[in-house]
Amino acid sequence: MAQLRVHNFSISLDGFATGEGRAKGEFFGHAGERLHEWMVATDTWQSGGSRGVDNAFAAQYWHGFGAEIMGAGKFGYPGWHDDPDWKGPWGDNPPFHTPVFVMTRRPRPSIEMEGGTTFHFVDAPPEKVLEMARDAADGKDVRLGGGATVIQQFLTAGLVDYMHIVVVPIVLGRGVNLWTGLEGVEKDFHVEAISSPSGVTHVTFTRTTN
Amino acid sequence: MAQLRVHNFSISLDGFATGEGRAKGEFFGHAGERLHEWMVATDTWQSGGSRGVDNAFAAQYWHGFGAEIMGAGKFGYPGWHDDPDWKGPWGDNPPFHTPVFVMTRRPRPSIEMEGGTTFHFVDAPPEKVLEMARDAADGKDVRLGGGATVIQQFLTAGLVDYMHIVVVPIVLGRGVNLWTGLEGVEKDFHVEAISSPSGVTHVTFTRTTN
Repeated sequence: MAQLRVHNFSISLDGFATGEGRAKGEFFGHAGERLHEWMVATDTWQSGGSRGVDNAFAAQYWHGFGAEIMGAGKFGYPGWHDDPDWKGPWGDNPPFHTPVFVMTRRPRPSIEMEGGTTFHFVDAPPEKVLEMARDAADGKDVRLGGGATVIQQFLTAGLVDYMHIVVVPIVLGRGVNLWTGLEGVEKDFHVEAISSPSGVTHVTFTRTTN
Repeated sequence: MAQLRVHNFSISLDGFATGEGRAKGEFFGHAGERLHEWMVATDTWQSGGSRGVDNAFAAQYWHGFGAEIMGAGKFGYPGWHDDPDWKGPWGDNPPFHTPVFVMTRRPRPSIEMEGGTTFHFVDAPPEKVLEMARDAADGKDVRLGGGATVIQQFLTAGLVDYMHIVVVPIVLGRGVNLWTGLEGVEKDFHVEAISSPSGVTHVTFTRTTN
């Protein structure tokens, strides 16, 4: 069966996936780009970049997916709902090239972008959104793109098959914490950790129960 | 100059150094022994145990120290202050074999144990306690034994020279969090991370500024 997978989800040592003070053009708030420097330094992101363990993980982000699910927070800045022309922060040709299901309490009509990405806006519980995404993915896997609160919802519902978390050695202190409400989540997964010379540690959760 | 060092300080993925529900005989609350399984499995703790990277780190706990500083929480269970006969949870011959300075707002007379350990109870700020411990250590280093709130105090005061944190791949959800109030603490340190086949990740902070 097609899987629901999280990839390249970067957090600080204290668990924050984004900082405070998010705004248009400052999508991670006071965290800035620090959580993703490891990723943009890889060959997958920029030709000529690193080709070690960081790149091996980063590359998996792009393979085998037929759809993405993301939260309203990832689709834009706080307030995008009030901007009828907002089409996400990725430009005319977003990097997804599949249907993308944006979970929001204020849906709008679907937006077809260049390159095969279509944004669908859905107000539904995780199980239902996953069903829609699976139908759209046509047998391929579904990427769970975040943010943290969306990942929490899908973990709590027992729907996540694989999760790749990247722990960046900084202490953000505030923001949105991935681990909130997830006590004992490791029990349903085989967990591995591998540190990289870049300083980050890749932690993988592979589901062992159903 | 003699250093102030933290060793083998184990936390969950979400940063908790101890769980909730601490009591006599349950010193880590709902965390149980899970944060320290990596350590007791090493040859340093039990002859015949593992001798890989976990043991290499674990062994450093014992070398070069002339004194320890710990918080009231580490010395016992919530309520030990009301037990005049309480001498800590380590038995007649505690493993420190040096002077140990217990920070508490309710000091009592010093207790001399077997094997060279003497507990001194001090109600003083971090700088002052470190001064006392350095005097007692006679040129050797001082171990900062925790718990989390004590480490936070010494980090905030800029007094910690080296800190070895062990991230255990469980999500505790509640308890005392090491990272509280430490936003940006990494700026004063060179930080490295190395994962172990046991599943834990050793994160070391070595001070680069003074």
